[in-house]
Amino acid sequence: MGSVPSVVNLVKGEMMKDDDNDLYFVEGIAVPETPLPGEALPAWRKTAVIGGREPRVDAYERVSGTAVYPSDIVLPNMLYGALLRCPHAHARVKKVDVSAAEKMDGVHAVLTGASLGRQVQWPYTETVVTDLFDAHCRFEGEAVAAVAAATPYAVRDALRAIKVEYEVLPFVADERRALEAGAVRIQAEGNRLKGETYERGDVGKGFAEADVVLEQEYRTACEIHAPMELHGCVANWEGDSLTIWESTQGVYSVQAKAAEILGLPLSRVRVIGHYVGGGFGSKLQPGKYTICAALLARRTGRPVKLFLSREETMLAAGNRPPATMTIKAGVKKDGVLTALQFSGLGSGGAYPAGGTSLLDWLVRDLYTCANVKSELTDVAINAGPARPFRAPGHPQCALALEQMMDSLAEAVGLDPVDIRLKNVPLVSQAREGAPPYTTTGLAECIRRGAEAFGWGEARRRTAAARKDKGHLKRGVGMGSCLWVAGGGRPPATVIVKLFADGSVNLNMGASDIGTGTKTVMSMVLSEELGVRPETIQIEHADTGSTQYATPSGGSKTVPTESPAVRAAAVAVKQQLLKMAAEELGRPQEDLRYTGEYIEVAGNGKKVKITAIAALKRQGVVVGIGYRGPNPEGKAVNPFAAQFCEVEVNIRTGEVRILRFLGAHESGRVMDRLTFDNQVFGGITMGIGLGMTETRILDGNRTGKMVNRNLHDYKLPTALDVPVDMVSLPVDMPDAEANNTGAKGLGEPVTIPTAAAIANAIYDATGVRVQESPADPLTMNRLLAAQGREGRS
Amino acid sequence: MGSVPSVVNLVKGEMMKDDDNDLYFVEGIAVPETPLPGEALPAWRKTAVIGGREPRVDAYERVSGTAVYPSDIVLPNMLYGALLRCPHAHARVKKVDVSAAEKMDGVHAVLTGASLGRQVQWPYTETVVTDLFDAHCRFEGEAVAAVAAATPYAVRDALRAIKVEYEVLPFVADERRALEAGAVRIQAEGNRLKGETYERGDVGKGFAEADVVLEQEYRTACEIHAPMELHGCVANWEGDSLTIWESTQGVYSVQAKAAEILGLPLSRVRVIGHYVGGGFGSKLQPGKYTICAALLARRTGRPVKLFLSREETMLAAGNRPPATMTIKAGVKKDGVLTALQFSGLGSGGAYPAGGTSLLDWLVRDLYTCANVKSELTDVAINAGPARPFRAPGHPQCALALEQMMDSLAEAVGLDPVDIRLKNVPLVSQAREGAPPYTTTGLAECIRRGAEAFGWGEARRRTAAARKDKGHLKRGVGMGSCLWVAGGGRPPATVIVKLFADGSVNLNMGASDIGTGTKTVMSMVLSEELGVRPETIQIEHADTGSTQYATPSGGSKTVPTESPAVRAAAVAVKQQLLKMAAEELGRPQEDLRYTGEYIEVAGNGKKVKITAIAALKRQGVVVGIGYRGPNPEGKAVNPFAAQFCEVEVNIRTGEVRILRFLGAHESGRVMDRLTFDNQVFGGITMGIGLGMTETRILDGNRTGKMVNRNLHDYKLPTALDVPVDMVSLPVDMPDAEANNTGAKGLGEPVTIPTAAAIANAIYDATGVRVQESPADPLTMNRLLAAQGREGRS
Repeated sequence: MGSVPSVVNLVKGEMMKDDDNDLYFVEGIAVPETPLPGEALPAWRKTAVIGGREPRVDAYERVSGTAVYPSDIVLPNMLYGALLRCPHAHARVKKVDVSAAEKMDGVHAVLTGASLGRQVQWPYTETVVTDLFDAHCRFEGEAVAAVAAATPYAVRDALRAIKVEYEVLPFVADERRALEAGAVRIQAEGNRLKGETYERGDVGKGFAEADVVLEQEYRTACEIHAPMELHGCVANWEGDSLTIWESTQGVYSVQAKAAEILGLPLSRVRVIGHYVGGGFGSKLQPGKYTICAALLARRTGRPVKLFLSREETMLAAGNRPPATMTIKAGVKKDGVLTALQFSGLGSGGAYPAGGTSLLDWLVRDLYTCANVKSELTDVAINAGPARPFRAPGHPQCALALEQMMDSLAEAVGLDPVDIRLKNVPLVSQAREGAPPYTTTGLAECIRRGAEAFGWGEARRRTAAARKDKGHLKRGVGMGSCLWVAGGGRPPATVIVKLFADGSVNLNMGASDIGTGTKTVMSMVLSEELGVRPETIQIEHADTGSTQYATPSGGSKTVPTESPAVRAAAVAVKQQLLKMAAEELGRPQEDLRYTGEYIEVAGNGKKVKITAIAALKRQGVVVGIGYRGPNPEGKAVNPFAAQFCEVEVNIRTGEVRILRFLGAHESGRVMDRLTFDNQVFGGITMGIGLGMTETRILDGNRTGKMVNRNLHDYKLPTALDVPVDMVSLPVDMPDAEANNTGAKGLGEPVTIPTAAAIANAIYDATGVRVQESPADPLTMNRLLAAQGREGRS
Repeated sequence: MGSVPSVVNLVKGEMMKDDDNDLYFVEGIAVPETPLPGEALPAWRKTAVIGGREPRVDAYERVSGTAVYPSDIVLPNMLYGALLRCPHAHARVKKVDVSAAEKMDGVHAVLTGASLGRQVQWPYTETVVTDLFDAHCRFEGEAVAAVAAATPYAVRDALRAIKVEYEVLPFVADERRALEAGAVRIQAEGNRLKGETYERGDVGKGFAEADVVLEQEYRTACEIHAPMELHGCVANWEGDSLTIWESTQGVYSVQAKAAEILGLPLSRVRVIGHYVGGGFGSKLQPGKYTICAALLARRTGRPVKLFLSREETMLAAGNRPPATMTIKAGVKKDGVLTALQFSGLGSGGAYPAGGTSLLDWLVRDLYTCANVKSELTDVAINAGPARPFRAPGHPQCALALEQMMDSLAEAVGLDPVDIRLKNVPLVSQAREGAPPYTTTGLAECIRRGAEAFGWGEARRRTAAARKDKGHLKRGVGMGSCLWVAGGGRPPATVIVKLFADGSVNLNMGASDIGTGTKTVMSMVLSEELGVRPETIQIEHADTGSTQYATPSGGSKTVPTESPAVRAAAVAVKQQLLKMAAEELGRPQEDLRYTGEYIEVAGNGKKVKITAIAALKRQGVVVGIGYRGPNPEGKAVNPFAAQFCEVEVNIRTGEVRILRFLGAHESGRVMDRLTFDNQVFGGITMGIGLGMTETRILDGNRTGKMVNRNLHDYKLPTALDVPVDMVSLPVDMPDAEANNTGAKGLGEPVTIPTAAAIANAIYDATGVRVQESPADPLTMNRLLAAQGREGRS
């Protein structure tokens, strides 16, 4: 029995509400004025809760381990599923013999291409569609068979007992070789999957007008998402209805694709994803694992849990494509850009999977430039398909563009800060009609970031130290960015219920992918309704019981959902005001909602919300809120500038980040704590791209990935991240964007990080980081090629 | 592996939708006209789906055993809870020694009155509140302690190891003795809990005007609800939030009472009750078991499952109170009632629990009568508290009133059918202002029921057989009724989502207590939206994720929820019509919704709903529907008449029901199958009251219940129910009542059953069934007292 405290004390001590319900009303909150029905919902001018530091509403569950992630789900009679994967980079399945596996103890079902035939298909695009288990295995890790068995051990044993005869084929593992004559053809129509060009103005003219023209080449390595929680799901049928608990960023997108592939009405597919241990873009869609779990569960009549191993996720659950980039830029002596030309070659693996998605967006849109031309080529290689990865294309492009900006600055004798400020855009040039930005905090981010970082002083210090002969070189660098999206958009529907005791329930379909969505939405409700954020009951991320939301990705969750949450809260208030108006016998215009009470303006008369007879009678008040349209003719984007200081050991090639500062303008700062979390997390991920992460394919002998585990694939650890990290919010409530004034933050935080590090390395050593990651191997190579002693 | 058919075939064969989605659109449905926004929602004039025979949408789950009832819930690390109950009819706890129990293997927590102190209290009424474990045990089965342990066995072992010292007190087990001088006092203020009187007109004058005045006495036995699924729940805490999976008729009422007792905001208590294996009124509220499970889970930090044993439910989970009734009636020669006088004595057990609830309603309101007087006395006895039981008070009263009506008819030489038709009411006399009924099908039920039953012919046959000297006597009897409620009422909120592929999701808080609520609501959606009922996804009965509903009881679920469901469906249609109007460039008034398409009236132009671009963009359309107000100045009630034929063995006292017919007017017939289910189920339950069921307390020595199991407590079985059962719906869509025209059915079906049987027994034997149940023991006693040979 031990020393567990009295139940009553536990219950009473922590939870008992007093007679006045004060425990869950915010004391003295200045609840915003409520528009009358029909009036537009104005943006907040002042806030009481929003912008403060609110801890996660689910912190206890996450930290204590009581939060049930999809990978924690255990159902009665549940079987375990697993996929047999092709061990070759490129091969053709000749024969699959499952007879031994089927006879094994505990094995309940085996699915193969032969048993499924052509009937279950996997659509990569509208035109590229393969069998679920395609005989042509185009990458190492391609699914060949699926098994359900009684235990996680039995299912792995069964996989080993399946005998597959492969015809091993030649492979191509590098995007730069995919178009060479003699390269093996991966897709029927050849290895060139997609080409895209963009042009505005006349770059020839632009280069001619330039005082300086530079051209540089870059390559970024392929990066793996590697979220803490592996990819997978639990599938269960009740009659003809399928329920999927999936580790996902978007339950509705999993529902849509699973229903499409299985040929089910959407109403027969319920997807639940209450927690998700990271996704970073790799969990916006279901995987073949989802479909296999559903098919195995259907076949066996039992729930099936199918989660990938870490190794499988490395091979087959997505990546940030490698990119080879050439950038040419022209600039006037005063720092004004005259032309930008960019070509990018990328590969999303063996299938069309966005190998060059948004790879040139920053070239097109980050800086004011009249003459821009770019060309993207997306090719197939024998590797696992890409999935969107936090700010697709942007960090890769930033590495090229932002180093080029520094090079241009150096060539015309300007400070990196100044050349960027010269070219800050006020309109989105790459969009039709060049619409103005609602707010653009880019200049503010650069200026305030530089000031807070002590940029000028640091630049002088590193310049002065250049003559030092020591092997430890210090440098400072910066990078700036915007993110192509981040304004959010409709649709989003949210329902808020206020119970008879004044406590509140929030129902929304959006996933909280670890970014604090639930916390921010609770703060929005708190701001409007005056209830304490942590007492709000939240149901979310369930296609069956919660409202429609698009996946949590693209830095759009807060700007998409928060206006709908606010609108729903206001709808609740309006109903309460109407009830109170009847009860008090006063017109609604005379009343003020103060959280716990509704007051008659001026005369001090008031009614406690929980005492409103109509509320008691009705049990709850339900408010529905929709995300309104975006402003017409405007672009809504977040901006950022990041600054860092590094120390490079030119003997060993080791780079140590000494300090890092992220200045971010994402509209209104909603929760300062989650804001900082995003900034720190995004920078950390950017450090991974810039300094540690690379998928290594054995390009010579096998084409196989050689670092398919978390020992050999180097995620940044606590030792790679500086203690001195500063988040500097540039708080600019964007009243034009939406009614909460928020823009997205999840992606910009990781875009300029690797570029800022690279620029700092250049400042320290005079070496341009032409390849990522800047790990000791790469650095040694670059130092050797460009001059180990650094610049003088 | 066996012969499980191919997964694909299973999936494709049953589920694959073709390109046209025809599989889930109803072919050629005549979808009702949709009112424009702002227009009132008219009642249906014609229906295509409603009124048909639709099988249960959850039939597969219920029959296959995949439906997860609360008692099926298993959570990881779950403990099992149980209550120690007082074994005496009346006692005082002197000392509880839990030391041995606490030391036992697997025991995790023991709660007693001493450990909880006065802090957790159980409110019977606003003024009668006891400690959760009260030292004064007023009935056998009163909770004394609670234990949580690792297994169901360990927890029962632990209960046995708790040593309790009781002071055993004198008891009173019969409501007729509770007010006698010298009876032990159960409640502090004495055993008289509540008195109620009603009077209209002048009964003295009425009796003076009568040609015949009769007076009779009746007693009905106490009946136990005995639902298939036992009472109980699983409780689990996540942080400070409590989730309860309870076998309940109303998740919101469980939430409200649990939150009140535990001192939690409603937003911290989530109650889920997806299936419930019967309730019949006994599961409208949580029990002490609910609170104990929550406290044990809090104390142990683990989920706790606490379901009662069958024996416990018999003692402590409710009952239909026993009633002792006197009825005096006056009638003119022509059959017109002149006066009704009634007195009822009842007991809901040891606490105020509705011992005489609605016991006189039929006397007040079933027949037109100017002079009515009644008096109710509710007393305490040492027995478990009552809970509402399908049509509280009504079947008991019907046994008295309907036998009296037959006696009056006989006295003035009228047929039982005719005397009732003479007194059919058109207004609700017992209500303020005597409002007219919206529809009254009483006369129709009597007339059409009699005709379908062959009443006249049967009466002649039984009359003719009276001279037969055999020991098997046949008789026919009837009873009619109304139910005090059944019109439904606000509030109810429902949300309908139409997915981009046209399939539909329904979100409502109401429980489907086995009556087919989900099926009927699916039909309402089908009628409005043209989708097939069985493809509709339903989320219900969850305070966290579904909309507000009052408990499923009082025959109000269909008339309360179905209008809200319809309103939500219409809201969806209106949005689709608006989208289509924009897409087709036509005013909304010109468009017609036909299920799969929206057509331009007249010109044949149409757009497929799933092809509407705005729907694709939006992902879903969400409609919210509310239950509107009831008609002012009107009474909405269902009516019925039931007819049966019995055979009485006057040697053994056995009564065999040969055939039974229920004619029911409950407004519009929604689903003919669930309608019939209700009629058959209600009659079966009425047979229990009339013929088999009685709680037997040992009134002499111990006061304990002696038949506390399903062997000794006689529920009617298949052998007690006639094969020849007929459901005769009197379909009268009640356009005034609400927009679907439905009234309640769950309760009227059981009200006149026992009375009809009793009247048939009288017809057969000349013996008045003054006591229920008419089992062989009672019948032998009555036959002996009133003349074994029957009337001549």
